[in-house]
Amino acid sequence: MKSLVLEEKMKLSLRDFPIEREEVLGPRDVRIKLHTVGICGSDVHYYAHGGTGVFQVKAPMILGHEASGTVIETGAEVTSLKAGDRVCMEPGVPDPNSRATRMGLYNVDPAVRFWATPPVHGVLRPAVVHPADFSFKLPDNVSFAEAAMVEPLAVGVHAATKAQVKPGDIALVIGAGPIGLVTALSAVAAGCARVFVSDIDDAKLELAAKLGPISPVNVARQDLAKEILAATDGWGVEIVFECSGHPKGAEGVFDPLSPGGRVVFIGSQVHPIHYDVGKAMVREARVEHVFRYAHVFPRCVAMLSSGAIDVKPLITRTFDFDESVRAFEIAASAPKGEVKMQIALPQ
Amino acid sequence: MKSLVLEEKMKLSLRDFPIEREEVLGPRDVRIKLHTVGICGSDVHYYAHGGTGVFQVKAPMILGHEASGTVIETGAEVTSLKAGDRVCMEPGVPDPNSRATRMGLYNVDPAVRFWATPPVHGVLRPAVVHPADFSFKLPDNVSFAEAAMVEPLAVGVHAATKAQVKPGDIALVIGAGPIGLVTALSAVAAGCARVFVSDIDDAKLELAAKLGPISPVNVARQDLAKEILAATDGWGVEIVFECSGHPKGAEGVFDPLSPGGRVVFIGSQVHPIHYDVGKAMVREARVEHVFRYAHVFPRCVAMLSSGAIDVKPLITRTFDFDESVRAFEIAASAPKGEVKMQIALPQ
Amino acid sequence: MKSLVLEEKMKLSLRDFPIEREEVLGPRDVRIKLHTVGICGSDVHYYAHGGTGVFQVKAPMILGHEASGTVIETGAEVTSLKAGDRVCMEPGVPDPNSRATRMGLYNVDPAVRFWATPPVHGVLRPAVVHPADFSFKLPDNVSFAEAAMVEPLAVGVHAATKAQVKPGDIALVIGAGPIGLVTALSAVAAGCARVFVSDIDDAKLELAAKLGPISPVNVARQDLAKEILAATDGWGVEIVFECSGHPKGAEGVFDPLSPGGRVVFIGSQVHPIHYDVGKAMVREARVEHVFRYAHVFPRCVAMLSSGAIDVKPLITRTFDFDESVRAFEIAASAPKGEVKMQIALPQ
Amino acid sequence: MKSLVLEEKMKLSLRDFPIEREEVLGPRDVRIKLHTVGICGSDVHYYAHGGTGVFQVKAPMILGHEASGTVIETGAEVTSLKAGDRVCMEPGVPDPNSRATRMGLYNVDPAVRFWATPPVHGVLRPAVVHPADFSFKLPDNVSFAEAAMVEPLAVGVHAATKAQVKPGDIALVIGAGPIGLVTALSAVAAGCARVFVSDIDDAKLELAAKLGPISPVNVARQDLAKEILAATDGWGVEIVFECSGHPKGAEGVFDPLSPGGRVVFIGSQVHPIHYDVGKAMVREARVEHVFRYAHVFPRCVAMLSSGAIDVKPLITRTFDFDESVRAFEIAASAPKGEVKMQIALPQ
Repeated sequence: MKSLVLEEKMKLSLRDFPIEREEVLGPRDVRIKLHTVGICGSDVHYYAHGGTGVFQVKAPMILGHEASGTVIETGAEVTSLKAGDRVCMEPGVPDPNSRATRMGLYNVDPAVRFWATPPVHGVLRPAVVHPADFSFKLPDNVSFAEAAMVEPLAVGVHAATKAQVKPGDIALVIGAGPIGLVTALSAVAAGCARVFVSDIDDAKLELAAKLGPISPVNVARQDLAKEILAATDGWGVEIVFECSGHPKGAEGVFDPLSPGGRVVFIGSQVHPIHYDVGKAMVREARVEHVFRYAHVFPRCVAMLSSGAIDVKPLITRTFDFDESVRAFEIAASAPKGEVKMQIALPQ
Repeated sequence: MKSLVLEEKMKLSLRDFPIEREEVLGPRDVRIKLHTVGICGSDVHYYAHGGTGVFQVKAPMILGHEASGTVIETGAEVTSLKAGDRVCMEPGVPDPNSRATRMGLYNVDPAVRFWATPPVHGVLRPAVVHPADFSFKLPDNVSFAEAAMVEPLAVGVHAATKAQVKPGDIALVIGAGPIGLVTALSAVAAGCARVFVSDIDDAKLELAAKLGPISPVNVARQDLAKEILAATDGWGVEIVFECSGHPKGAEGVFDPLSPGGRVVFIGSQVHPIHYDVGKAMVREARVEHVFRYAHVFPRCVAMLSSGAIDVKPLITRTFDFDESVRAFEIAASAPKGEVKMQIALPQ
Repeated sequence: MKSLVLEEKMKLSLRDFPIEREEVLGPRDVRIKLHTVGICGSDVHYYAHGGTGVFQVKAPMILGHEASGTVIETGAEVTSLKAGDRVCMEPGVPDPNSRATRMGLYNVDPAVRFWATPPVHGVLRPAVVHPADFSFKLPDNVSFAEAAMVEPLAVGVHAATKAQVKPGDIALVIGAGPIGLVTALSAVAAGCARVFVSDIDDAKLELAAKLGPISPVNVARQDLAKEILAATDGWGVEIVFECSGHPKGAEGVFDPLSPGGRVVFIGSQVHPIHYDVGKAMVREARVEHVFRYAHVFPRCVAMLSSGAIDVKPLITRTFDFDESVRAFEIAASAPKGEVKMQIALPQ
Repeated sequence: MKSLVLEEKMKLSLRDFPIEREEVLGPRDVRIKLHTVGICGSDVHYYAHGGTGVFQVKAPMILGHEASGTVIETGAEVTSLKAGDRVCMEPGVPDPNSRATRMGLYNVDPAVRFWATPPVHGVLRPAVVHPADFSFKLPDNVSFAEAAMVEPLAVGVHAATKAQVKPGDIALVIGAGPIGLVTALSAVAAGCARVFVSDIDDAKLELAAKLGPISPVNVARQDLAKEILAATDGWGVEIVFECSGHPKGAEGVFDPLSPGGRVVFIGSQVHPIHYDVGKAMVREARVEHVFRYAHVFPRCVAMLSSGAIDVKPLITRTFDFDESVRAFEIAASAPKGEVKMQIALPQ
């Protein structure tokens, strides 16, 4: 009954942890045996830094929030799932009665409890109790590994939804990390004719270029706005997705943007950025900001199942649960060529 | 210098016709040598019936409006195109000064002059003068045959745009004719996880099923709403595209529709349909109606070029220009298994 | 402890009824002493006809659903309200866990339980238990009578919201009954520069004309589309709100509509209407259908309080609760000049 | 035949200027005798500073762009106007053939020529030739003075349109200058139940409070976000309109904003602002940027005519044309209590 516990900054242990034995199954909950859990940048950040902003790890906390598994028990009122169902799970659960939740905007409910965000435990552990409403049944043709990719994919799909992509739009994704890549996949799936992806890492850009009608731009060597304007007859791209989280990326969003274009901020920023209101004005830019996702998990599952989106090329390495600590050590070393590393739990 | 002339109902001739010699090249026009012209249902309808509604063929008229070709001359103010450029052309040209056009809604400008719609001649002829603004340069990897498919494809892309497809939506396309199929392709390209296509013709449905994550429903044997509700846990599809033009198709649009769903009417109807306001209300359905397309030709070209949409499987037969009359006779016989027939002009 | 009970079609009695003593106060509920209840067309319809469609009165049922009152008891978890608070109440309560409700579309949840819709009792009775989430605190400057108008007003505000009124739009409201008038008020409040209202009753049209920049059109004497096109330089109105519930009204919505215009169906129809797809197409009309309202009660309260909307001219007559049966007899006689009749309960 | 000419920075003269005699009347133009011209902050800025950004006054330039007048001559193709018609004029004229203009986004066409923006002359002169499409006929009940207010009002109406105000929204307008006030009026007209207006000038705030359901907040004494959150049960306002042009105003837009709220940047900024992406993200804020206006002049005229908006309280002083130089001297002194000063030309 081991869990992967972040004891404190830079100290992980795989050890018995009492939590899952204490979890009570409510009438609308299911109990899920975990199968696959992806390693997210935020997990690595908690491991390496012990916290981020207001969220600081003050007591031992289980990591992991990109997860799939199998239902092993259902609450009295659950009708959508039964024991044996394979599922992926949405890691953030809002207050069902909050004003935001009732309006359908549950992701911006300040009361959301999110796995592996202090003080809420994650799911690198044998089992978890979770609301059935936030657990989504998998079709047979979606693997546990793909299902554990739904969480990051949901960020990209939510961003593409907010961008209101029109068929034939041309987009730019700034940043070719895991979130940049799922956003590029989502942008293509959402109707973009072509997506530029910018980064400074040629290996990531090479991978990006294989994922569809995606054109890489290495901003270490090329002037991003110039390249894009040249490729679009001077018009610019209709959509810019900022996924780098770097101030420089965020501060350049308007230069390659077309008149009437949209910008979506996905990557978070440590400090306020320098924002050029004038450049946004002359284009009448619309800027959207996304916070995780809402209502998109079942959509992601459907797109994986139908083949509309293929995330398999992004899963570059899988570890046994016993190797979890080492997996995090590797992840924290920012290994070249890795996109998404996952951990498979014993079944 | 022959043209394909509809002399009157059921009488076509391939003969010399004075029009193109008389056409004056304005400063913002280009002269285009025609290469490929698709046969549209409306062309066949004029041939077989001599007219439709207010549009009656009262004098000999050249047919054809789905076209691609090569620029051979440019007006004094044209900068976007030059002689030798391969192009596809938007067949409807609005009054640039009308209220609708100035708002960006040029397709609903009542003054639109549309090829092969009486009294405006079509383009089954050697050359045509056309505004450069409605002529779109083709990348090298888009063939003339694909380019002549942009016109019908534009209908589907415009419909998918109006539907405001969100990534992961499930849609239904009623009718598997050419417009139904381009709409299904457009719906998938626009983000649908899955598209149901209904028809009574198994051959068309078989073709549809090969075009992507498309599930055929033969309404001669299956209850459409029942099938769809069963396949969607009783929720229904988020979008219904009505492409059949049959009253029965149009009158059933709400039964398989989800709460908050959208309907797009694409197929025209000869008579008013029976419309169940109550069924639309309990779902708070949004119903859109499309009229041709606006601003989507360059988007279609970009999607063909990037591979986001592939129309090649829909081009089932090509005729030499000399065989034009026979091509129309075949088209008028509603041949099994044909989707889009095209005519290649001598180069 | 009397209630107004519809015993059967055409038989009302004011008598003791056990329901409110049996109602259990849940943790998120409040108990409300009723103050004012408006008489709605649907109440009158149940009285006169004993039912409508699938909703038939099979057992004695209390009428009334347009209501305001005072909180007299609160459930353990209620924090938004306290005893003594004046409130108006939303009469339909959905399943909080349904798919539609969770998406924010609770009004299209098929499980909604709605006051005075069989078998759910209405509120022409001393007190009622209701969820706090569907009870809205009134500012001091909103009277109980105005508050009991929030329910019908919400229909108009929801329709104007769905219509996405842009400032300066010109609209047409078909039908000058209570719903037509609240829709006209809502359309003006939502930004319309001018609203045409059509009816065949001069008295209603005269009242309408006093409510703001509203131009009456008597369709018994005038050709609606002709009048509107003449008044708008041939362009038509950007929005048509169908509030008459008559097939003739519904079938004429496209004639006075501008290119790119929107239609909102508010009035219900007994039978399918004849719907001209072609007229909708050439305008690329968007047709919305509303079903009651969602999330607009607090907005209506805010607009009444700020003076953005004034419903007082619509309240044409008030009865004591003891006169309830007579009030319904009068209401059922379709009295000239009456818009909204209300019943004040003993305090 | 005098014009008000900015000879150079701080030097104005009222003198004969050759321009209007040289202007050629094109077939789609009208010649307009000027009646009233408002003084805009940008006029004063050119007067006081000789330029702004890339726009520098390098040769004598006539000032003035908020204008109304009377048609005195019409071009051969003009049908919408005739001599004697009273009109107001949109001061920016785009290239009708640009990509942005054809999409209906003419205000973001970089080729727009705008009155009193170097090197384009303004209209503080006897007459001007202008496209009929950008000249709007006035109803009898709209005065020349009100009509000359349409230009600044259009900024507010365009901003309220972009904000997609829903009936019952609560908004905040930052800045109570002329643009802040027309925006507040527009927000109320567009459906806001209540609008907060913030400034540091009590005189301006007092005027604002008289214009409708508008609540002033003096940020010299009050904490804006705190006041707003207190007044909205902690939820915040659905919309923030930034009209101050001050970095401090622009940098505080997210603090009082509700989850899912919208921000509109209207006031321009000299330097990039500090922009807190994180605050925007947790609310999933949508940020719009407006650049002048498009397609709203006739809407503004209709709203003035119907009484939906009343700009008369904003016109605080009128000068004879002969007093123009003095009017600018006064305007440049930032006089207390003045909102909009206008100049009436000799008729």
